[in-house]
Amino acid sequence: MKNHDVNDQRLTIGVDLGATKIEIALVDGEGRIIRRTRQPTEAKHGPAHIVGELASSVAAMIPSDDANAVIGLGVGVAGQVDTEAGIVRAAPNLEWREFPLRQHLEAAVKLPVVVMNDVQAATYGEWLHGVARNAEDLVCLFVGTGIGGGIVAAGRLLQGSTGNAGELGHTTIDRNGPKCSCGNHGCLEAFASGWAIARFAGQRMSWRGSEAMTAGDVSEAYRRGDDAARQVVDEIGRALGVGLANIANSFNPTLIVLGGGVIDGLPELLPIAEAEARVRALAAATRKLRIVRAGLGADAGAIGAARRACDRILGDAVPG
Amino acid sequence: MKNHDVNDQRLTIGVDLGATKIEIALVDGEGRIIRRTRQPTEAKHGPAHIVGELASSVAAMIPSDDANAVIGLGVGVAGQVDTEAGIVRAAPNLEWREFPLRQHLEAAVKLPVVVMNDVQAATYGEWLHGVARNAEDLVCLFVGTGIGGGIVAAGRLLQGSTGNAGELGHTTIDRNGPKCSCGNHGCLEAFASGWAIARFAGQRMSWRGSEAMTAGDVSEAYRRGDDAARQVVDEIGRALGVGLANIANSFNPTLIVLGGGVIDGLPELLPIAEAEARVRALAAATRKLRIVRAGLGADAGAIGAARRACDRILGDAVPG
Repeated sequence: MKNHDVNDQRLTIGVDLGATKIEIALVDGEGRIIRRTRQPTEAKHGPAHIVGELASSVAAMIPSDDANAVIGLGVGVAGQVDTEAGIVRAAPNLEWREFPLRQHLEAAVKLPVVVMNDVQAATYGEWLHGVARNAEDLVCLFVGTGIGGGIVAAGRLLQGSTGNAGELGHTTIDRNGPKCSCGNHGCLEAFASGWAIARFAGQRMSWRGSEAMTAGDVSEAYRRGDDAARQVVDEIGRALGVGLANIANSFNPTLIVLGGGVIDGLPELLPIAEAEARVRALAAATRKLRIVRAGLGADAGAIGAARRACDRILGDAVPG
Repeated sequence: MKNHDVNDQRLTIGVDLGATKIEIALVDGEGRIIRRTRQPTEAKHGPAHIVGELASSVAAMIPSDDANAVIGLGVGVAGQVDTEAGIVRAAPNLEWREFPLRQHLEAAVKLPVVVMNDVQAATYGEWLHGVARNAEDLVCLFVGTGIGGGIVAAGRLLQGSTGNAGELGHTTIDRNGPKCSCGNHGCLEAFASGWAIARFAGQRMSWRGSEAMTAGDVSEAYRRGDDAARQVVDEIGRALGVGLANIANSFNPTLIVLGGGVIDGLPELLPIAEAEARVRALAAATRKLRIVRAGLGADAGAIGAARRACDRILGDAVPG
């Protein structure tokens, strides 16, 4: 793992570019957010429009008294990203394909730009400045509308051969299970993601309409002692635990970090998932394993994008 | 990935220490076996006895005209191994626990010794000298009596925090599936390993007794056009494909290497497994993926153990 000088005062701008909103943060060398802004993602106007909007916000964030204080810009995008080429290969929620984001953004903001996958960015954030500091082997699992994973192995962030390492939401835990958004059957995401919980709770908790059901609604009913809600939470938690066991046996990390809106809205899932994981996984693979909640919340993506950009830009500039 | 001089003539001895037999090979810098021997594993006499037998065989293998030609010894052990400490933490088939194999062997053979997990050794062999040469991201899956995996990510062999990375046979593909040897339910190993095939074929192919059923027997019946055998092969192949899809989505390798006795005895599984994997996995994660058979056969473990020992011993000796 890289060592970071705690007095490091270099600034980088981090962007978490999601399907509905864009988080932009000015981040210092210790991972602290100095300034931040949020704007809606106007995806329907196309990528050039988003680049323009982003460039304006970035320009407004650069300190007017010291324009050279900001060394670069990191952008995490929900989708398949080729970091080396600076190209977003496919971002279905934005309807982007093969968009050279780095090239367009660098021309617009006049700063070095690093593009990356948003979950990998958030994992980097948790690793450097969140709950996973100093861990050599960790897996972050972000459970929100969908489920994505980020992997650090032997002190390095894994990207995979085409940037798709860590698609843990789309690993099959029940080969005969329900259909997933990806087309497969029985993915972890088809059991424990926000959309799957809404569907499942809608089926099981007939005292409410299914259309408005969220992890938070289930949590509220669970806390009121609702029996159907208890069964739903138990079922979802155990499915999540199967996913955690698979992570433990595949990667043998010391730490699994759980974050995302579903975990925040329904933290009751954690002890159920952990108990199931420890029953299912090999004892040797879980002896040193801790399972914890993420520390940076919704800021992980922007902080991680900024810090990874900083490390890559300085790493590129400094020989060796 | 490390570059190896093709004219490298350093010799290392590699040992594949299994539950029933011990393979010992004198290996050159290009991964070629110069001399070899095989002996039964007399596990019932305890670890000290095995160390003594091993030391005699190793001594007999060192060239009498140039004792300094051999720089060290690498040993792959079926079990949980702490390579840094040189300790076999747990090898259930040998009934070893916390055995300091490196210390005992170094005292007996007067050579530097490196101990490692046998599947990780075989993966290293396939990576350096087998079918996976020059791949940066690959996963080897060895399907024999049990199923084990070895992972190379971004040009490095992953060991995990306690040496258990790659226990892919014990990832759950069907959470309600049959019981596995590890105590979990629905592991990949409970569907596609040698013991699972024997069990499954015994249930489905009632024209034969179940006790003697092997992958080879199933293959023979399949080639004769036996209908029950065809269904068994289809079912096992599709289960294996679920495992391959999970590997693709988790690690995003360019190459999955399939080896082991079940694959050798029943190569018909491969096209079925590959078709299932490509249907289930994300298109982005499999676009560049090739699924191939292992190249070194039963020699992979000894070759890999030797070559990894060589790299670690020279790497330790050379600063930087």
